[in-house]
Amino acid sequence: MDDALAVSAVGGTRIEAVMAAISDRIATRSLMPGARLPSVRSLAKIMQVSVSTVVEAYERLAAEGMIRSRPGSGFYVCGPLPPLSLSEAGARSDRNVDPLWISRQSLEMGDDVLKPGCGWLPASWLPQAALRRAMRTLARGDLETLANYATPLGLPPLRQLLARRLGEHGITVPPDQIMLTESGTQAIDLLCRFLLEPGDTVLVDDPCYFNFHALLRAHRANVVAVPFTPTGPDVELFGQALERHKPRLYITNSAIHNPTGAVLSPVTAHRLLKLADASGLVIIEDDIFSDFENVPAPRLAAYDGLERVIHIGSFSKTLSASVRCGFIAARPDWIDGLVDLKVASSFSCGQLSAELVYLALKDGSYRKHVEALRVRLAKAMSEVTARLEAIGITPWLEPQAGMLLWCRLPEGLDAADVARAGLAEGVILAPGNAFSVADNAGSFMRFNVAQSTDGRIFDVLEASMRRLSTDRPTVGGARGSSRT
Amino acid sequence: MDDALAVSAVGGTRIEAVMAAISDRIATRSLMPGARLPSVRSLAKIMQVSVSTVVEAYERLAAEGMIRSRPGSGFYVCGPLPPLSLSEAGARSDRNVDPLWISRQSLEMGDDVLKPGCGWLPASWLPQAALRRAMRTLARGDLETLANYATPLGLPPLRQLLARRLGEHGITVPPDQIMLTESGTQAIDLLCRFLLEPGDTVLVDDPCYFNFHALLRAHRANVVAVPFTPTGPDVELFGQALERHKPRLYITNSAIHNPTGAVLSPVTAHRLLKLADASGLVIIEDDIFSDFENVPAPRLAAYDGLERVIHIGSFSKTLSASVRCGFIAARPDWIDGLVDLKVASSFSCGQLSAELVYLALKDGSYRKHVEALRVRLAKAMSEVTARLEAIGITPWLEPQAGMLLWCRLPEGLDAADVARAGLAEGVILAPGNAFSVADNAGSFMRFNVAQSTDGRIFDVLEASMRRLSTDRPTVGGARGSSRT
Repeated sequence: MDDALAVSAVGGTRIEAVMAAISDRIATRSLMPGARLPSVRSLAKIMQVSVSTVVEAYERLAAEGMIRSRPGSGFYVCGPLPPLSLSEAGARSDRNVDPLWISRQSLEMGDDVLKPGCGWLPASWLPQAALRRAMRTLARGDLETLANYATPLGLPPLRQLLARRLGEHGITVPPDQIMLTESGTQAIDLLCRFLLEPGDTVLVDDPCYFNFHALLRAHRANVVAVPFTPTGPDVELFGQALERHKPRLYITNSAIHNPTGAVLSPVTAHRLLKLADASGLVIIEDDIFSDFENVPAPRLAAYDGLERVIHIGSFSKTLSASVRCGFIAARPDWIDGLVDLKVASSFSCGQLSAELVYLALKDGSYRKHVEALRVRLAKAMSEVTARLEAIGITPWLEPQAGMLLWCRLPEGLDAADVARAGLAEGVILAPGNAFSVADNAGSFMRFNVAQSTDGRIFDVLEASMRRLSTDRPTVGGARGSSRT
Repeated sequence: MDDALAVSAVGGTRIEAVMAAISDRIATRSLMPGARLPSVRSLAKIMQVSVSTVVEAYERLAAEGMIRSRPGSGFYVCGPLPPLSLSEAGARSDRNVDPLWISRQSLEMGDDVLKPGCGWLPASWLPQAALRRAMRTLARGDLETLANYATPLGLPPLRQLLARRLGEHGITVPPDQIMLTESGTQAIDLLCRFLLEPGDTVLVDDPCYFNFHALLRAHRANVVAVPFTPTGPDVELFGQALERHKPRLYITNSAIHNPTGAVLSPVTAHRLLKLADASGLVIIEDDIFSDFENVPAPRLAAYDGLERVIHIGSFSKTLSASVRCGFIAARPDWIDGLVDLKVASSFSCGQLSAELVYLALKDGSYRKHVEALRVRLAKAMSEVTARLEAIGITPWLEPQAGMLLWCRLPEGLDAADVARAGLAEGVILAPGNAFSVADNAGSFMRFNVAQSTDGRIFDVLEASMRRLSTDRPTVGGARGSSRT
């Protein structure tokens, strides 16, 4: 570093050279905001300039607001602040497995790109008729609904409808224990703020929905992953993680697990809850794929009676991702605190979105649409499975329902390499390690069968995999070379 | 405490008495989650029971999941966790000046209640025609808009339109430095998460918009208030606060200040920014009342060029509070980090809301509506001022525009008392100390002139004030007796 400073003192005046050296170190964060600058004397010595040159440089930097003097104590770097950074780009070896980067790619790319890696249905698979009818009803409806804030808990008839729907899954909850949110993600976000202190440990599944990682990083939580099996988390390892890490919270999907498509078995659900009871663990159960189910799976909230399980959901996957609306069902004392937090952080939810969701859900066409959707998904699931198997990509399990298929690549291939190759051809893939905090899923990939109807996807996959296999000097072991 | 435990050992079995004593202490938080319980021997001695009774009681509590044993180290209280509490009900002497309570009251109460204290326009004052037309257009429009996620920055044409509108206020910003959010409140919330560490100090105005307090408490920030003058914050005291508290952030309203209706003067704006520059302070300028302005006021973001000022806004006050949409204009490097944070915490904003706002804003009727609204507000402002003055309530200043009127009550009256009396009569008022972190505004009240057209408000006010004045044994001094 001292060398670097000495070298930079060429060209321009000496004062400017000193200023540039300090500015560079601030810009590259080698001098962080709040850090004390080298003393005038020591810097003069290092840069081989006079003390008065450094004094003048420091004065000018202070006048520019880059540093400030504290009388008797020297100069310090002032703002701009080092803002919170969520990106793992620096920490991860590869942006292709950075969860945030995949989310942003999927959201940014237009319709000319194929997105077998994204986590939602194509718009054409959603209940268009019900949505348009709901919009028309609202356009000529009550002015208050169009213009005014919602109540703090959110639209009463939608909460009543949700209470009935939850009842069908064995979850008994009155409408005033349901709070509407802007989205399922916002529901989890509010709950994390409500339940976590920075540094608390949170359990997730390995693999799990990748946005959990980004969200938990935003809460400065310590994330511990427990291996997921075809019937739920590994109970033995779950118990060990409770003992060892004393987590405050476990976040999981109920019904259809993201990314694996697996379903919790009753016995795993029961054992999990016994462990949670014994250790004071709180569980968030994210039930966003509920309407895709053919046969109802056990819900942790149904077994637990909303004592320590919090049940959340949204309508982004089955109704519309454009109309933002989610919900939280929880104990009454927690709902009360969550309402305060919602008012403080977003004042009120969209009344219009809630009303739209309500109208669309109770539209006569919605149930028929969902039934047809399940059939369509099952058909796509078997077709995509066959196409993937034909090129050597094999499902980890055969999901009972839903749109997600968790697959293993042929031996020796790294999913991040394949995803990178796919992106170059306009195909957004979801490599396994984006879903794995422990980086255990380098040979896996998640496919969305509803977004995988275009044959070009499989051509690109096959060609990329062939090229990557032959490019490799030695092929062997479960992991690719880029992930060592 | 030992006495209390000994006394409670009556009725039921001894084991149950020990269990009840421990449960009570957990319920009342005198034993917090994570705390170690008294040793078996010491509790047996205190409660005058046998050691085996305590052992059995602890075992049963552990079986209930209330406590857990750590081998070799004793028993500890487990969850449920003590969740984050935002309510000031405990800390404040009076719920009537708890900001969150006022927000919740205003949002919960139906249309049968008069709300001169609330912070938004009646639905009938909003641009109904433009909203309904926008809804109809969307109902027959593009399916992607109805069903799909927005891009991470949000709807491009709305960001272009916002860039043009900001340009009219002297703020030069390209559309890709504007990020849409769910609301103005969510914009501030995201920025706090981005910029603050727990324990950081934030400057606000005294008085200021009351939800800033609740929001900053959710971020565990240390809030320092600087007295507000008719031309902006007191610059002298602002400078002293910077020196003394080294805040990272200052949050304020530009254009029309909430609750005072005051407008920043150019000289105050310039001095503030000089102070901010010298100390590395970041400023969030909340410009939600922009469309109410008759004469454009200075914007800090225009003077600063978005270096350290972040400009935010929303459409809840002039278009619709039901259609949630806000925005952040900031430096490009900050916008990039904010997009990550938005994706992590809410995945995507409502595309539908953004499209609705866009269509309504560019609807030919919107500008005419806003012009008519300004005239209507000016008329209501002078009428309400006259009616308030007739009963001895005097404005702190005569606002140039907007709907808010900050008033002083007659000598000796406490605004919280008056608000409590008003609530009993179905009139929701906004007592001054809800806006004052320093509790400096006990004799002030904020009125929304658009919500004060009903004569009953002034009858209730007058009657309440008369009763409170005569109830009082001695009337004198600026503050009421309940606020000592």
